[in-house]
Amino acid sequence: MPDKFKSFNPVEKTLMGPGPSDVSPRVLAAQGQATIGHLDPQFVSLMDEIKDLLRYAFRTKNDVTFPVSAPGSAGMETCIVNLVEPGDKVIVCINGVFGGRMKENVERAGGIAVVVEDEWGEPVSVDKVEAALKANPDAVALGFVHSETSTGVRSDAEALCALAREHGCLTIVDAVTTLGGIPLEVDGWGIDAIYSGSQKCLSAPPGLSPVSFSAKALEKVRNRKAKVQSWFLDLNLVLGYWDGDGGRAYHHTAPVNAMYGLHESLVILHEEGIEKSWERHQRVHQQLHQGLGELGIEYLVDTPYRLPQLNSVLIPDHLQSGEADIRKELLTEHRLEIGAGLGALAGKVWRIGLMGHSAREENVTKCLEAMKVAMR
Amino acid sequence: MPDKFKSFNPVEKTLMGPGPSDVSPRVLAAQGQATIGHLDPQFVSLMDEIKDLLRYAFRTKNDVTFPVSAPGSAGMETCIVNLVEPGDKVIVCINGVFGGRMKENVERAGGIAVVVEDEWGEPVSVDKVEAALKANPDAVALGFVHSETSTGVRSDAEALCALAREHGCLTIVDAVTTLGGIPLEVDGWGIDAIYSGSQKCLSAPPGLSPVSFSAKALEKVRNRKAKVQSWFLDLNLVLGYWDGDGGRAYHHTAPVNAMYGLHESLVILHEEGIEKSWERHQRVHQQLHQGLGELGIEYLVDTPYRLPQLNSVLIPDHLQSGEADIRKELLTEHRLEIGAGLGALAGKVWRIGLMGHSAREENVTKCLEAMKVAMR
Repeated sequence: MPDKFKSFNPVEKTLMGPGPSDVSPRVLAAQGQATIGHLDPQFVSLMDEIKDLLRYAFRTKNDVTFPVSAPGSAGMETCIVNLVEPGDKVIVCINGVFGGRMKENVERAGGIAVVVEDEWGEPVSVDKVEAALKANPDAVALGFVHSETSTGVRSDAEALCALAREHGCLTIVDAVTTLGGIPLEVDGWGIDAIYSGSQKCLSAPPGLSPVSFSAKALEKVRNRKAKVQSWFLDLNLVLGYWDGDGGRAYHHTAPVNAMYGLHESLVILHEEGIEKSWERHQRVHQQLHQGLGELGIEYLVDTPYRLPQLNSVLIPDHLQSGEADIRKELLTEHRLEIGAGLGALAGKVWRIGLMGHSAREENVTKCLEAMKVAMR
Repeated sequence: MPDKFKSFNPVEKTLMGPGPSDVSPRVLAAQGQATIGHLDPQFVSLMDEIKDLLRYAFRTKNDVTFPVSAPGSAGMETCIVNLVEPGDKVIVCINGVFGGRMKENVERAGGIAVVVEDEWGEPVSVDKVEAALKANPDAVALGFVHSETSTGVRSDAEALCALAREHGCLTIVDAVTTLGGIPLEVDGWGIDAIYSGSQKCLSAPPGLSPVSFSAKALEKVRNRKAKVQSWFLDLNLVLGYWDGDGGRAYHHTAPVNAMYGLHESLVILHEEGIEKSWERHQRVHQQLHQGLGELGIEYLVDTPYRLPQLNSVLIPDHLQSGEADIRKELLTEHRLEIGAGLGALAGKVWRIGLMGHSAREENVTKCLEAMKVAMR
């Protein structure tokens, strides 16, 4: 171990990978303000505003809408450990990394996962889900990923939720990469449990996971026979802290400064207007798409299912063996981060994020110029 | 919901409650630096330095020493869900809020908790623990709180760990309020699993939970028959991210900016020297103790077990009914936060924290002056 440690000074990068995305200077400044107590009345007001702003972003009136004090993976686990009891059957759609993680969570909660599988790069098949719902009338929930960060695919959340409702199933929706980037209607589509992340299209630093639960989902939580296996994520306890009538009950200590950052990122979203944010993501995506076309780079995902905020593009054959060096050159020479492929797509695709504060024309211009040089 | 939301500007307070403690301007500035990718080589180096610095603070050579990406409660849960398998018997010592929480976690992990109970305000009885170990030769672990934040009591961790080792039990130690504030020797005392928090004597913002595991503890984790019930906290997976040989495996996205803050707080601790930090906490505590004595205020906890960093003091009888107003006046008029009593001690004690950056003479002077006015 060294005798002396130095303060850390990150070299600023343009973040166009799968997240974290660029964090606006306003959010960084908010995060750096003085820490106050997590039960201070001023902090309690901030918690209330964060809940209001998240309701705005999720397009919901759900009372229970708040950020879990941990990253998106913990948001997923919150939804699953609260809603799934031992022996519960859950239909889980897998078309990328995060569907697989959902299955793992269901099983660790003692649930039985019925898997509906689709190719990586394809959306969740509505027909297959319908067949699975018909074949499993005892299923209690349907879980799927709205925006698969590992592939850049959007699935039809509205249709999937309608089907689940028809079959009396709750819905658990992964919106980590969705929130703020593309249309999402929690109430309009009848989503029962949803989780997201702070570091994607909201452009706050990573570490928080916004969630929202419908009344029907909460009824299932309240009527559980078994205790929620996680103390830290147990909604019955967490809500005493976030939603306590007549005073908040201490549960854990909220990450105070991270909440400042999330709040500011949501204020920025509200100033822009969420529809305008969706439009911006789409517009900037078109710009990237056109520029990549000029470089001869094609997309993995077909147009109708393509996420504007997460562009999975095929690495030209002759560059595949050296693709890691190209990403390294982008990072070190151009201070630009883009993402590698995951799983079967490793070495075959790059993932270019246009999320939140990263979804700007200047970022696209920079990215295209840098790629042109690095791919030479 | 309002039409417009404003940026949040916290009113700066002097934090002398049970945590968070005052965060130094250096740590706040570190936190506010540009976010970089969580797999960026520069961030990976930062992770390595944080591990080195935590080994320094914990006084351990344990390889597996890192901060869990969530608050202290999640650190507790990490230790318990990894070490306790269904049916495992764990002796849990309860002498305040956090021992009770440990029991709850053991039971939710499917373990059987054998409770050793002591009065709130008293340390864990070494004799009772010895009797419990003798009576339960099949116990696999002993869990206790080193520094009870709810009461201000220090228990004899060294003696308790020695006893556990004699009886072939692993030890799970809550050091949330200990780390950096009073002597702690993870290797010297033979602690197997330990967790702390960023927002106490390290004086980083809340949100991270440093943990450390001995080789013996890891052996138990590796030989588990059942999967760890939490995906997010499963050491087998988390370690691929924090300790991966030949490259880090993506698990979750680390709270990048929070890590900047924790790193800076550990650099500050290392600059001062940990023994010097222990001495400072003791010295400033003496100053507070003397000043409170002059105000006629006595301590809940007897001298040998008293924590310097968490001062539980008895509210004079004639002030008990109005104690909440006094705390409110301190907060609003003097911008000073002190803590309320918890559980049976609510309304009877105040908890005055002298942790990390809050353990300064000027804080004590401010606190004593403000209390003098508010108690009039």
